[in-house]
Amino acid sequence: MALVVQKYGGTSVGTIDKIRNVAKRVARTHDDGNDVVVIVSAMSGETNKLVAMANEMCEFPSEREYDVLVSTGEQVTIALLSMCLQAMGYKAKSYLGHQIPILTDSASSKARIKEIGQDNIRQDLNGGSIVVVAGFQGIDAEGNITTMGRGGSDTSAVAVAAALKADVCEIYTDVDGVYTTDPRIVENAKKIEKITYDEMLEMASLGAKVLQIRSVEFAKKYGVLVHVRSSFNDNPGTLVLKEDTDMETVLVSGVTYSKDEAKISVLQIPDKPGVAASIFTPLSDANITVDVIIQNVSTKGLNDLTFTVPRADFKKALKIVEEHAEKVNAGGVTSDGKVAKVSIVGVGMRSHSGIASKMFNALASEGINIQMITTSEIKVSCVIDDKYAELAVRVLHDAFELGTQEED
Amino acid sequence: MALVVQKYGGTSVGTIDKIRNVAKRVARTHDDGNDVVVIVSAMSGETNKLVAMANEMCEFPSEREYDVLVSTGEQVTIALLSMCLQAMGYKAKSYLGHQIPILTDSASSKARIKEIGQDNIRQDLNGGSIVVVAGFQGIDAEGNITTMGRGGSDTSAVAVAAALKADVCEIYTDVDGVYTTDPRIVENAKKIEKITYDEMLEMASLGAKVLQIRSVEFAKKYGVLVHVRSSFNDNPGTLVLKEDTDMETVLVSGVTYSKDEAKISVLQIPDKPGVAASIFTPLSDANITVDVIIQNVSTKGLNDLTFTVPRADFKKALKIVEEHAEKVNAGGVTSDGKVAKVSIVGVGMRSHSGIASKMFNALASEGINIQMITTSEIKVSCVIDDKYAELAVRVLHDAFELGTQEED
Repeated sequence: MALVVQKYGGTSVGTIDKIRNVAKRVARTHDDGNDVVVIVSAMSGETNKLVAMANEMCEFPSEREYDVLVSTGEQVTIALLSMCLQAMGYKAKSYLGHQIPILTDSASSKARIKEIGQDNIRQDLNGGSIVVVAGFQGIDAEGNITTMGRGGSDTSAVAVAAALKADVCEIYTDVDGVYTTDPRIVENAKKIEKITYDEMLEMASLGAKVLQIRSVEFAKKYGVLVHVRSSFNDNPGTLVLKEDTDMETVLVSGVTYSKDEAKISVLQIPDKPGVAASIFTPLSDANITVDVIIQNVSTKGLNDLTFTVPRADFKKALKIVEEHAEKVNAGGVTSDGKVAKVSIVGVGMRSHSGIASKMFNALASEGINIQMITTSEIKVSCVIDDKYAELAVRVLHDAFELGTQEED
Repeated sequence: MALVVQKYGGTSVGTIDKIRNVAKRVARTHDDGNDVVVIVSAMSGETNKLVAMANEMCEFPSEREYDVLVSTGEQVTIALLSMCLQAMGYKAKSYLGHQIPILTDSASSKARIKEIGQDNIRQDLNGGSIVVVAGFQGIDAEGNITTMGRGGSDTSAVAVAAALKADVCEIYTDVDGVYTTDPRIVENAKKIEKITYDEMLEMASLGAKVLQIRSVEFAKKYGVLVHVRSSFNDNPGTLVLKEDTDMETVLVSGVTYSKDEAKISVLQIPDKPGVAASIFTPLSDANITVDVIIQNVSTKGLNDLTFTVPRADFKKALKIVEEHAEKVNAGGVTSDGKVAKVSIVGVGMRSHSGIASKMFNALASEGINIQMITTSEIKVSCVIDDKYAELAVRVLHDAFELGTQEED
């Protein structure tokens, strides 16, 4: 008998009928002799509806009250799913964040989990109950309701799995698993059977929207076996796990991309300590995340500094940078609001040379100019002209032979 | 400086704009130098929507989970109202049942309040905050969410007012106060300025739908001054309070009626102990409330027993009574599914004679036959043919001169 934690996202519980289907799947897992803890999101569309109400009420809703409001979405789902399981003859009990409790810090709308109580859940499991937990929400030390940001239910699920030392944390979603790249761009994109936490972190942060990145960090930290799979069929999905020896043989696991990028260059900056900080501190103060940063080798005591920011923040960032560039006597600022980032990710590349140059050659073969390059141990990213993004993904996916052979 | 508890019902907070209006009224009370605690219901229609979801999910939803579901309605309102007050520049904080806490027994969907914590609310009030409380909900000793039945927010408000020893509990609704009778039936029905708890209890239970009856019991028990008034204007409403001396001068305060009645008679019952119980126990076991009961004086050792039940339970009740009437060798059962009850209520009638006969004469003057009569200290009720209900109300309202003179 295993302890299985299952998480169902908003699209999987989007209607009464879909909740019934989830109940059947949960019941089947229970019938197979497993203890089951289910974490659910709000019915799809509900959270957006609640957010719209807050925005209609006022321009800058208080974060504490925002969390009180949006956490009702998950509360509705746990009640309905528990009712359904009970109507099917199973013992079931719903839990809100404060009832478990899921203790978080007090950072409203982006709270981090500090501790999860086990006693109440264990008691119910021992009594034969299926336990249904509201994802996304917790409670802080003062008893305020907190939420964990979009996709927070993934983190709730992995954290509950970690606390209970569950055998597996199944994340049910509307896709079959993690793919080698976006199947909308590359037809023969292949489902990945196994992927390491680190690869998943790189994939997630680069735009594969299957798992909230924080949930992967949590899974890595506590060694939780995560199984990403579809709630609409019984296909095995993708296992996210610790690296094992046979994974080294795969050089590149996936190709990811993001078109949500803009590029800003500050030219001819005096090469002295503190200059970079004087550009990036005001951006950070404005809550703008800077991603790829490149600084050219200094010539004549002057540097060129180039970096990317989310496209939504582009105008705001440019204004800030222009102000501060002047203060440090930079030669000028150039920018491009339409760039994309394509990346290859794989633990195997650590022990193999030539991966990066293979990437550059593949892009060059299609005449795609590389504007910026960054690398990590298991990732190479290139910033390119936005209009080549899809082409670049296809070229790289082919070059590293990631596609299914059968469907070629 | 006073401590004012205000309660706004579903129609008063039915839209974002209406919540804004409530916020303005709350703010004005605060500006006047009062400490303010606001209790709100779910936005009108929301509770019905949630109940419909539960019923769509399964035929007999678990009561515990039903409460988890429906309590989200009030949670949405407290968040929106608090946001709005904050956006207007006021300190405000929302409270759910478990955050106060409002401790109740474990009777899901009809929980009764056992204890209300004051410390958290007091601390916020002392800090200058407006406190916004979710009505209708509480938490039991095991941490389960409970709700208090339809209209439960009235009881929440009065209970919070009692716990905090508030100077007044203002119940805002969509009518101007308590009227001498239903203004849809009698054009010149008059708003009552002051009414005693006992009169209000008789009015409420007889069909005046302004206040949940349990909230009046609570107000009476703890001596809470209740002010029922409209959230759409500034008119003074009706004060519900302890009896004071000048109230004795008013003989009859109001005329109420209920058309939701049916009558059953069991004829020629042997006059021996335990027979009445053998009829009423099975009705009580079936959760059927018996209202007016009359037993005729025994002749030849045989009694006639007549009583009323809610019309919705009529068929079920009749079936049960017919079964058990046979067992006690009654002579037969007759019934009338269409009767109404009209009542006059007033503390003044205690010390005055002739009130009942004035009522009977008034009804007789219009040829309305009285089928049953019951009296209490401050109420006389007559059961009549359903079709005369409105006419009887008008006749009695006139006979006791309850209407406004100006509008005649």
